[in-house]
Parts: sequence; C-alpha cells; structure tokens
Amino acid sequence: MASRSGLCPVGELRSRSCCARKVTRVIPAFEFEERRERLLEHVRREKLSGYVLFRADYIQYFTGFRFLSNERPVIYAESAGGEASIFVPEFEVERTRAESTFERIDAYAEYPGLEHPMRIFARVLEDVGIEGAIGADQDGYPGILGYEGPPLSEVTGTSVTTLSGVVESMMRRKSESELELIRESGRWCAHAHRLLQEYTRPGVTEAEASLRAGSETTLAMLSARGEVGGLASSDGVSAGYRGQIGTRSSWAHAVAHDIEFRAGDMLVTETSAPVWGYNAELERGMVIGPPTDEQRLLFGHVVAAQQAAFTAIRPGATCADVDSAVMRYFEENDLLPYWRQHTGHGIGLRNHEVPFLDLGDHTVLQSGMVFTVEPGLYDSELGGFRHSDTVAVTEDGMQVLTDYPRDIDSLTLPV
Amino acid sequence: MASRSGLCPVGELRSRSCCARKVTRVIPAFEFEERRERLLEHVRREKLSGYVLFRADYIQYFTGFRFLSNERPVIYAESAGGEASIFVPEFEVERTRAESTFERIDAYAEYPGLEHPMRIFARVLEDVGIEGAIGADQDGYPGILGYEGPPLSEVTGTSVTTLSGVVESMMRRKSESELELIRESGRWCAHAHRLLQEYTRPGVTEAEASLRAGSETTLAMLSARGEVGGLASSDGVSAGYRGQIGTRSSWAHAVAHDIEFRAGDMLVTETSAPVWGYNAELERGMVIGPPTDEQRLLFGHVVAAQQAAFTAIRPGATCADVDSAVMRYFEENDLLPYWRQHTGHGIGLRNHEVPFLDLGDHTVLQSGMVFTVEPGLYDSELGGFRHSDTVAVTEDGMQVLTDYPRDIDSLTLPV
Repeated sequence: MASRSGLCPVGELRSRSCCARKVTRVIPAFEFEERRERLLEHVRREKLSGYVLFRADYIQYFTGFRFLSNERPVIYAESAGGEASIFVPEFEVERTRAESTFERIDAYAEYPGLEHPMRIFARVLEDVGIEGAIGADQDGYPGILGYEGPPLSEVTGTSVTTLSGVVESMMRRKSESELELIRESGRWCAHAHRLLQEYTRPGVTEAEASLRAGSETTLAMLSARGEVGGLASSDGVSAGYRGQIGTRSSWAHAVAHDIEFRAGDMLVTETSAPVWGYNAELERGMVIGPPTDEQRLLFGHVVAAQQAAFTAIRPGATCADVDSAVMRYFEENDLLPYWRQHTGHGIGLRNHEVPFLDLGDHTVLQSGMVFTVEPGLYDSELGGFRHSDTVAVTEDGMQVLTDYPRDIDSLTLPV
Repeated sequence: MASRSGLCPVGELRSRSCCARKVTRVIPAFEFEERRERLLEHVRREKLSGYVLFRADYIQYFTGFRFLSNERPVIYAESAGGEASIFVPEFEVERTRAESTFERIDAYAEYPGLEHPMRIFARVLEDVGIEGAIGADQDGYPGILGYEGPPLSEVTGTSVTTLSGVVESMMRRKSESELELIRESGRWCAHAHRLLQEYTRPGVTEAEASLRAGSETTLAMLSARGEVGGLASSDGVSAGYRGQIGTRSSWAHAVAHDIEFRAGDMLVTETSAPVWGYNAELERGMVIGPPTDEQRLLFGHVVAAQQAAFTAIRPGATCADVDSAVMRYFEENDLLPYWRQHTGHGIGLRNHEVPFLDLGDHTVLQSGMVFTVEPGLYDSELGGFRHSDTVAVTEDGMQVLTDYPRDIDSLTLPV
C-alpha cells in the first residue's frame, strides 16, 4: 500500500517497513540520465537541434514517466543543449508535477481542442531552443484511439530525422537494473504458474483457474514489493491458457473460449508479471493425467530443442544462428512437420521486442540482450508442446532468468 | 463453457441450453457482408482495384475475425470484384480455418523470415486481382511490437489511397446489433460496479476490491453468455480506481498505486466489460462516509452538467455544441476553475473513438453515434467528481445505455 503523500524520488522508493530500509527495485535516476545523455550525444553528432519522443514506451525508457497513453498526445522534447520539456494535456499537469521530477512542464487544453496540440507544441520547441533539424522517434504523434494531426515536420517547418533505430538499439541491451527487474518478473511468473497448475483440474474452467492464479499472485506481488511507485493501471499478474487447451493447444496463438478442462488435455500456458514495466516470459506445455508415449516423446524433444538454442546463444553468434540450431535439431529428428514458429523474440519493457530469434534476423548477439526461447512442436491431433523461458546473453554465453521445471513429470496434472 | 468442436458459424452461436435456443448476441454474418459491400462501393467509386486492411480493429469490424495482434502481420484484402484473402502467419492457418468463414487463406512462414511477409503479400494481391491503385487503411503494416517493413505502395509499385476516414465514418454510426452489445456491456459494467462499491471499505486496498469485483463479474458474464465465440484473451470485466482515491481523485487519469481506502476518501471509479469486443463506459464519483456540504454541492453540479449535455445531444447538433452546453453550465455556476477535460468521446469497438465531445470537434451528430458523457469537476484539495455514462444518439434525441444511480446518497459508502 502506498502512502498518500510519500512520493519518493525515483530510485529511492522503499517498502512499508522503512526501518528495515528494504529498497524496492526500480531503475535508478542516474540511469535515466545516462540514457538521455547517450541519445543527446547521437543528436549532437548528427547536428540536430534536439530530439522529440512521441511513443509512451520510449518516454518511459528515457525518463521513467508513466501515464495512460491515449488520443491526447504526451510528448517529451530535449534540446541539444539539454533544455527539456514534458508536454501534457492540462488535466495531467498536477499529477505530472507530483509524480515526476521534470523541471519544465508545458500543457495544452484538450485534444482536439480549439487549437491543435501539435501547433502549441511547435511553440514549446522554439521556446526550449529546438530550431532547425530535429530528431524524433517518428514524424508526429501516432494514430492512437482516433488521434489525427499534422506531422512534426509540418508544424515546425524543419526536417525530421528518425531516431527509432537508435532508440531500439539502446533498448535491446539491458542494464544490470533492468535484468534484475526482468528476473523479478520471472519469479512472479513462476509464482502464478505454480498456482495455475494447482487450480487446473478436470471440471474447472480456463477462466476460473486463470483469474484465481492471477488475482492471488497480483496481491502477493503488491504486498511483497511494498510501495511500487510506477505501477500502472494495466499492470498486475496474469496466468492462463488463452484457449490453448486440448487440440487447440496446437494453435500457437489461440484466443480464449473459457473451456472446461478434461482428463487427457494437452495444455500450453502463458504468464505475465510486469515489474515496473519490465517483463519476463514463462510458458509451459502440460498434460492432464498420464501422458501417452507419443506425448512423452514430443515433450522430450521440445526440452532438447530449447537446449539446442541455449547452447547456440553467445555473444558473436547471430539471431539466425540460434534459430538454425533449432531447425537443425528438428530436421535431424524428423520433426519439421510439427514446426510452426521461430525460436523466440526480444523482451523487456515490451513483451515482444526486436531482435527476433529467426532465420531472417542477422543481428549479432551482444551481452545484455534478453530473449524468450520457445521452440514448439504442434500437431492438430496431438496438441501443442512449448516451453518458453527468458534468457539474457552474458559475456561468455547466456543465463536463464526464469526458473521452473521443464520435465514432463513435473508438468503432469492429476486427473 | 465452450464445446471443443461446436464451432457455430458467426451469428448463430448459442448458449449451452440448446433446447431453449437462447441466442447469444453477436454481430450477424449478413451485417459483416453489408459493411464490406459499403466499403467496396466506395472502392469502386474511387476506381480502385481493391482494398487492404492492416489494423486489427478494422479487420474485426469488417469480417468478425479476431486474433492476437503482434509483430507478425495479419492482413485482409478484397478486390473490387469481390475476391478476398486473409493473409496470416503459418501458425495461424489451422485456427483461421476452424474459427472463421474465409474462403481463401494465404500464409507466410514467419516474420521477419527469409522473405519479408510484405513481399509475399504483394504476390497474393496480384493473385486476387488487385492490380493498379489500391485503397488501404494505411500504407503498410503499423510498427507493432518491433515490426518493420516496406510500405504497401513500395511492394506493389502502385499508389495507395487512404481509407481510414471512410472506415472511421462507418464505424461511428452503430447498428442495432452493435447498440445491443454496448447495452449488454453496460449491464456488466453496472454489475461489476455494484460489487466494487460493496467491496470498497476503509482498510481494504484498491487492488483487493478491484480484483474481486472484476473476477467475480467476469465469471458471471461467461456463465450467463454461454458460448461466447470471439472472446479474446484480453477480454474480461474490470472495475477499479486506477489510483483515483482521496485527493488523487482530482487527477482525471491517475495511475494505480494500490492505495488503502480511508474514511473520507473521494473516489472516481472506472469499469470495462467488452462484449464481443464492444464497450460501454460507466464511471462514478463516490465518497467513503458522509459527504461534506462542499462535496454534496459539487456532486450535484456534475449530475446537472451531465444533464445539460444530455439535453444538448440530438441529431443535427455538433459535438462542439454539446461541450459548449457543459462549459456554459460551468461558467454560469462559477465552476470553470474545476474544469479539466472535455465532455466525452466516441466509444464502440475501441474504448475511445472519434468523434469527441469537444469544443474543437464540429462533427454533426447522427443517430447511431455512441458517446461517453462525463463532464467532471476536479480540485486538488476536494478531489475529483465525475460520472461517466454511455449514450446513443437516436432519431430525435438520445438514449442512455448505462443504468446506475447518480445521486450522492446511492454513492456514499459506509465507514
């Protein structure tokens, strides 16, 4: 539970037991400064007058500021000289002042409003000294929830250079504090998964097991983390199946139908537990009642295929190398007919990020990159078999950030 | 609970008690056909060779097909002659075949893949006879979760005319079956709100009350609706405060901090209960313990301001007229210092849609348009006061689609 007034500066949020000075893990303030400084260095090298961020995930990455993203633009701008402004709708001013450390806050009345927010924003840019070529994640606010408006280049009359490539390349290598948040997310995913496994029984429905596991874990996480600061509305822990039950488990992305579990069902789970915005991914194939020999065989193969990916992950290898290692394993074991998806994807502030562990992605792996590793086998009659774990590339290999049993005996549910 | 195999065609989904032939409300198949036909008429008038839809909400609006939108493009295309294709990643083929009525399904291996999906899609377009100028909601797949790719105009070598204006103008006038789904959503919002109100007591936390009300209502809704067909993973009912508790209720968009309720707290709620994708919005100001005279006064004013908006809503008036009526009420009652947001927004398949009940939006109201009406009063010391109801414009005025008490006595919680 948060105190009403006790808004600590970013990086110093503490749990309720203040005497113990137990520090709740967040991204420290100096790290946001370093990130902005790196982006500014790029901006100066490119002889740009400053940079502008329209996307909510980028604003969070560079400033730690969180808000409900909607059709009303929230924009962050910083000049090459380091003068910055956060631009928000009027109704966000008081909260922004209370929950952030921005020195300058500019506001517009409403969207669409009597004057379009982008026209007002153009004057703010002049005022902070951003005149001449600008860098931006994109040339205007994205069309969220019906937003429409002129491009940044039009309202400023200057050229706009895209920075999304630079931003994404920064985001894909995680810092120690980011890795720690992802690791913590993985622990809550495992907590929720244990409960999901416990509540999944014949006669129970998908929604019953899922809501119970998710609610209980959310409350446990909130209680354990104490004052969580940036917890956004959409946060909380979820665990479930999204319909991947019985033969539907062979659909790698099913949608939920609130199915009732039956003995013999193959299951593919999913969990989500953002911690201060950071995500791990943990998924397991499971079976209700004793597995058949065929199921046991395919279970063994997905564990081995995941191991083949783990072995291939190290700095200097490419994303494609990792996917190739898995494809080679599938080919050697006559499993290609069961293939449906590439090996994995980047993960962090978003639950899917670049790069992808895919034959067509030739990005070179570097330490600090974080991926899901989830080679699956799918058959319309036998069902789906997939374990997803989250791993970080290290200086000399990789490290698994999620910790949950992968063997079939641990994943066989009682009838 | 859904049967495993009983995938009924769209529009004929039935509840479990089949003998009763109780029909679960969905959008009937002929309505999707009519929508596509209207879009095709526009396409033919504009002498385009066909149309392409990249956005998930538009694909759902025109076809009823639902899927987990991510970095792997799902695209719908139809030629001026009526030949159509749904273009999906390989792993979606079997589910698409089972859960939709598309005659033609085209697939690509993976994203990014050895050949970019957009290059493959260009060949599909040729094959269905879309050659020459194309209409599309936008010129390529949006940058979801790290997606990058060439514009449609580049891979086809033809001009692309944007159709988003036409699509949005169709979506903003709801049909009878859409209104019925929104009305049903409103009933589940009210159900969740009653529980939220019951579980909100001093000493309880925001997350506890919210998770309990949301879970219980989700299970009740699933049980009552029976086979729900298109229920997507992210669906389910939610009810809560997103941090709008105590003086934080004066922040029109706060973010949750899992606050513990105390006697004297002002509260602003929010609820969400998508039914087959369609949303109503129901929000209330509430107070824990007897309201002060000042709180009672502001409560009365938000009810009266909402009434002023209701009176102004009729076909032929503009969105700006409605917002003006509210502003006039605020001005006449010296309430302008408490103003923070415009009167409301369109709502339907998205929880925010165009047009906006805003001084700057001169859209003329037409029957079938659906809006939230939520004029609020906010004070950093007194807190926030806002009721949000969902209304439909009718032939001669408007109709409220949400049904929940607005008077302060009904919204005062016991200490």
